[in-house]
Amino acid sequence: MAGNSFGKLFNLTTYGESHGPALGGVIDGCPPGIELDTDAIQNELNRRKPGQSAIVTQRKEPDSVKFYSGIFEGVTTGTPIGFVIENTNQKSHDYSHIKDSYRPSHADYTYDKKYGIRDYRGGGRSSARETACRVVAGAIAKQVLKDVEIYAYVSGVGTMKLDKPYSELDLTKIESNIVRCPDETMASKMEQYIKEVRSKGDTVGGIISCVVKNVPVGLGEPVFDKLHAELGKAMLSINAVKGFEYGSGFHGSTMYGSEHNDAFNTDGSTKTNYSGGIQGGISNGMDIYFNVAFKPVATLIQKYETIDKEGKVVQMQGKGRHDPCVVPRAVPIVEAMAALVLADFYLINKIY
Amino acid sequence: MAGNSFGKLFNLTTYGESHGPALGGVIDGCPPGIELDTDAIQNELNRRKPGQSAIVTQRKEPDSVKFYSGIFEGVTTGTPIGFVIENTNQKSHDYSHIKDSYRPSHADYTYDKKYGIRDYRGGGRSSARETACRVVAGAIAKQVLKDVEIYAYVSGVGTMKLDKPYSELDLTKIESNIVRCPDETMASKMEQYIKEVRSKGDTVGGIISCVVKNVPVGLGEPVFDKLHAELGKAMLSINAVKGFEYGSGFHGSTMYGSEHNDAFNTDGSTKTNYSGGIQGGISNGMDIYFNVAFKPVATLIQKYETIDKEGKVVQMQGKGRHDPCVVPRAVPIVEAMAALVLADFYLINKIY
Amino acid sequence: MAGNSFGKLFNLTTYGESHGPALGGVIDGCPPGIELDTDAIQNELNRRKPGQSAIVTQRKEPDSVKFYSGIFEGVTTGTPIGFVIENTNQKSHDYSHIKDSYRPSHADYTYDKKYGIRDYRGGGRSSARETACRVVAGAIAKQVLKDVEIYAYVSGVGTMKLDKPYSELDLTKIESNIVRCPDETMASKMEQYIKEVRSKGDTVGGIISCVVKNVPVGLGEPVFDKLHAELGKAMLSINAVKGFEYGSGFHGSTMYGSEHNDAFNTDGSTKTNYSGGIQGGISNGMDIYFNVAFKPVATLIQKYETIDKEGKVVQMQGKGRHDPCVVPRAVPIVEAMAALVLADFYLINKIY
Amino acid sequence: MAGNSFGKLFNLTTYGESHGPALGGVIDGCPPGIELDTDAIQNELNRRKPGQSAIVTQRKEPDSVKFYSGIFEGVTTGTPIGFVIENTNQKSHDYSHIKDSYRPSHADYTYDKKYGIRDYRGGGRSSARETACRVVAGAIAKQVLKDVEIYAYVSGVGTMKLDKPYSELDLTKIESNIVRCPDETMASKMEQYIKEVRSKGDTVGGIISCVVKNVPVGLGEPVFDKLHAELGKAMLSINAVKGFEYGSGFHGSTMYGSEHNDAFNTDGSTKTNYSGGIQGGISNGMDIYFNVAFKPVATLIQKYETIDKEGKVVQMQGKGRHDPCVVPRAVPIVEAMAALVLADFYLINKIY
Repeated sequence: MAGNSFGKLFNLTTYGESHGPALGGVIDGCPPGIELDTDAIQNELNRRKPGQSAIVTQRKEPDSVKFYSGIFEGVTTGTPIGFVIENTNQKSHDYSHIKDSYRPSHADYTYDKKYGIRDYRGGGRSSARETACRVVAGAIAKQVLKDVEIYAYVSGVGTMKLDKPYSELDLTKIESNIVRCPDETMASKMEQYIKEVRSKGDTVGGIISCVVKNVPVGLGEPVFDKLHAELGKAMLSINAVKGFEYGSGFHGSTMYGSEHNDAFNTDGSTKTNYSGGIQGGISNGMDIYFNVAFKPVATLIQKYETIDKEGKVVQMQGKGRHDPCVVPRAVPIVEAMAALVLADFYLINKIY
Repeated sequence: MAGNSFGKLFNLTTYGESHGPALGGVIDGCPPGIELDTDAIQNELNRRKPGQSAIVTQRKEPDSVKFYSGIFEGVTTGTPIGFVIENTNQKSHDYSHIKDSYRPSHADYTYDKKYGIRDYRGGGRSSARETACRVVAGAIAKQVLKDVEIYAYVSGVGTMKLDKPYSELDLTKIESNIVRCPDETMASKMEQYIKEVRSKGDTVGGIISCVVKNVPVGLGEPVFDKLHAELGKAMLSINAVKGFEYGSGFHGSTMYGSEHNDAFNTDGSTKTNYSGGIQGGISNGMDIYFNVAFKPVATLIQKYETIDKEGKVVQMQGKGRHDPCVVPRAVPIVEAMAALVLADFYLINKIY
Repeated sequence: MAGNSFGKLFNLTTYGESHGPALGGVIDGCPPGIELDTDAIQNELNRRKPGQSAIVTQRKEPDSVKFYSGIFEGVTTGTPIGFVIENTNQKSHDYSHIKDSYRPSHADYTYDKKYGIRDYRGGGRSSARETACRVVAGAIAKQVLKDVEIYAYVSGVGTMKLDKPYSELDLTKIESNIVRCPDETMASKMEQYIKEVRSKGDTVGGIISCVVKNVPVGLGEPVFDKLHAELGKAMLSINAVKGFEYGSGFHGSTMYGSEHNDAFNTDGSTKTNYSGGIQGGISNGMDIYFNVAFKPVATLIQKYETIDKEGKVVQMQGKGRHDPCVVPRAVPIVEAMAALVLADFYLINKIY
Repeated sequence: MAGNSFGKLFNLTTYGESHGPALGGVIDGCPPGIELDTDAIQNELNRRKPGQSAIVTQRKEPDSVKFYSGIFEGVTTGTPIGFVIENTNQKSHDYSHIKDSYRPSHADYTYDKKYGIRDYRGGGRSSARETACRVVAGAIAKQVLKDVEIYAYVSGVGTMKLDKPYSELDLTKIESNIVRCPDETMASKMEQYIKEVRSKGDTVGGIISCVVKNVPVGLGEPVFDKLHAELGKAMLSINAVKGFEYGSGFHGSTMYGSEHNDAFNTDGSTKTNYSGGIQGGISNGMDIYFNVAFKPVATLIQKYETIDKEGKVVQMQGKGRHDPCVVPRAVPIVEAMAALVLADFYLINKIY
């Protein structure tokens, strides 16, 4: 009810502030009998962690996950999986400058108005650090899903857009560069661009595209819990996301029905796939693909004016870790949320 | 779990197929003591109903709602509100042509694969007729929300786009024309365009924009149930929707942080509103605005080839009611879903 | 959230007041492909309806159910099953005597304090008439459960107790008498006793015992949603119920562990069954059995004093339909609630 | 869905096996602004922990709770409260004797059949050690409830029954003796009795009575989520519980309506309280009282025969910590579960 749980059957609850002792979560509903590949889980955490490359400020943050329950001799038991990620650098920072002020386009103001209190250190609960817990759960969800393949990649940074459809890309190359764009020419342009943005202390937004292959037919529940509606909610719940479209998306609104309808092949597959692998809210076995738009993050390394709790104007200087473009780091988060949605429907689908 | 309920505290469950005896719903969690304006409810139903104007095939379908419970002497009692909308023209049609065939880009194939059975008459459960129940509940949710104002309008039909921001539009003119576009010049162009599409037996998509004013600060729950995440899910659950963006949306992904950050005024309002009235998933009191993309509907009045249940190619001729562009009719549905989301968070917000 | 839904996967939502136009419900999550036996459903409704016999005031109330959705050509489709039971005698009664007064041990006072308004006619939402909807859903749940057999019977009326264990009773005789006690000698005593109570305008409580046979191993979820915890909640949610015990029950609290432990046979069954077919909250394949205690209903045909809304003492005269002992009529309700709980866990069990 | 969460608005999810690295939980929905009394929380944990007195085998188990989130400078923030209790003596025991065998009346058999795998060390997830997490959450719930007073005490051990109504007891004396019976004469008899049971390596059941005072009017939701139905579920979810009754309980089934009806005083209170403080599922402001029956725990320090996974008969010797009567230790668990139920309804009640 208070918004910290996701999923019905494969359910994740997360807790933790960015500078408290630890973050963590509970997965309730993971099927028993899965031999967990813990290296794969840690690998996903590593993909998400800050300071991975030259385009961002370095930071040592191990983000190692400890499992407390639900796994016995390496195998899931069907009981809840409790896990914890300790915050190792929680102590020394000085947050007095943001304690009583509201940074623009952060959640400072809204948390204070809603709750009357907030842990202001590093953004507290509103920090994207919370997504580390999603990545852990998503890595387990991927193992539940077995043959389903999820590929997210950066298709836009600022005004730079990769306009090729995913079918023309080599999706095995996503991890070959630090911006996670499978087109190498575009990747190096994006990288250069992000460095320029960084040098100004500024930030920039971007777009992540995601393709899901080998999806069984029948995932998704009409009428409110359509597969794409849950995917949309999942993506929009990621920090900084402003938009979601699947299949033909916004462009589809400009098309004629005679163009857009996906004619059947005799095996039930379709000749085109404007539907994005989903019809009537239910997967049809074709590839699912969607785009997620990220705004530029609000933390700039620049001077700015804002207000304090009393409404007085105050001068601020952005400091701390500078992430000029979080979009590459958000790639594993998009994959994790997709995996959570699909695992949930995958389990529901076993019932009926 | 099976997807026919929406909302946690202000909860709507719907049922019904387009050609069964009736559709209906139950609203559980409506606060007591609200003097219901039933004319306002019926008015919303009338806005949604097919055959309202010259741009679509005429049809007489009263869509009148009967309330069975939860209201005593015109006032809500806090007990569940059960309601029914009878299907008056359920009898005579001949659906033998679609009984054993899968129409392209409909839900015929996926329902059959998921459930092994479907009520094929008029699309059954996958018909947009289900949204009539949402409109009833949304009209009640609006009355719960009191001062909150929700304005949806058509901002795109096919390639025709209304590029003005909502602040430059006269939102009182939305209902003054049959396409529900508040810019009259654009409205008449859109109308003309839809007539042309209709004459070809084709369909076209479009975009609905929505603005919500007078939203209290504090609606929305971190971290998964962010206000915009629930709005996104709500919109994506409407038939034919392919995309959702709020605030700066997809365009925001091309911006710099230094442009996008919304500087505060001393009263806590912001000078710009790229955030779209939501920060950290919680409303900040500024206007909420978002766009919803609709694909063209799949039912064409044209000949086409498709497959039957055995995978054989069959020739089909589209017939029945022809709705070349459902986007104007979807305006009250978008408003209803927005109202349901907001009413739910409005009630949650009373707790803490 | 507002308490009108029951079950997670096999979910029932009910609505309706005893003297509104209709009661009804929605079953969301019924699996597709079930050929519904509608006679069996009507039969359960008939078992519940008032005025079945000489021991209560006669009343003509057909209680016939109309299905609006979710069933196509007699078979469930997996979409929600909406149903309605009309209130045929809603009009003419005079309720002015209870409009402004609080009858003792009814819900008049608590509803008024909680909601500030109530439909006072015939008890409104708090009337046991609501259980008719449960009986409809329970009859469908029984058909989902197939081989599972549920037998409820009256084992106590006032101080009269049937002390034989269920294994010594002929459960096929439950319906052979109007008190639904399978022991004919005790049944006729109970019948005589109820007639005496009736002649005084008084009421009396009783006990229903229930046995469930052929339960698959593995139903129930640790740790909060134990099978017996959900059964207990289900039974306690029935009007007038004051207690629930299963297996050895309250008597078990007086036993030694060396007596109470159920030793295994080599096939996994147990030599004794003090556990009541459930260990650690999960069914073990043995018979489930439990008792449900009903208080005497509050409506007497006697004069009494009570208070009105202003706290003034008023004289009242009980009138209306007189049901000296509702326990026999509650037998199908107990069975229905047991079926709802079991069907829910039965579906969950298919996932893992 | 998988049963490890409790409560809607004040929601607790627990995880952990008795011999894994740690147990823990997440409370989602605790209101912000509560200055937590952590000593009070630790005190409840101490009341629950094993080895408190001469009547049981001594054991050093600190059961200290660490909070990871949701509390800032000693005050709740409205974000989820994550907590952990480490298992300090998880290592050295030898569980090979129960690894492949099913102990009678434990959950060994049902877990294995349901999940195909179990952590057999110390009962794993089915261990009552899980209730430590409930006690932590319940202690916080008590602080949410403020003036509400919850008193649980032992009213029966084996055949020994304390037959006085709670109104004749001095509830401040509950903690004055190790059996937690407020009647000192009965307490010393019970203590002597438990010692005798212990000397035989046997166990015995008992009854806990609970009284809740200062309950606001209006808690509880009709029709399924009646206050007493949720209390019943909560109690039945505690390990070893076989029965629940409230107000007049099972005895009420033997009464006449003319005796049982609770006549009103002019202030809305009632002259008697057979209703147990709840009418129509909603609290009426009178004391809530109920009884909970516990079976004798299954772990005996005796020789016995049972079966292994292959169905072969094996000889076993009970060993390990011997708790001849867990009922006194369950007193804080009963209180905790009552607090969780009441806090949940208390928050719901703020909405409407």
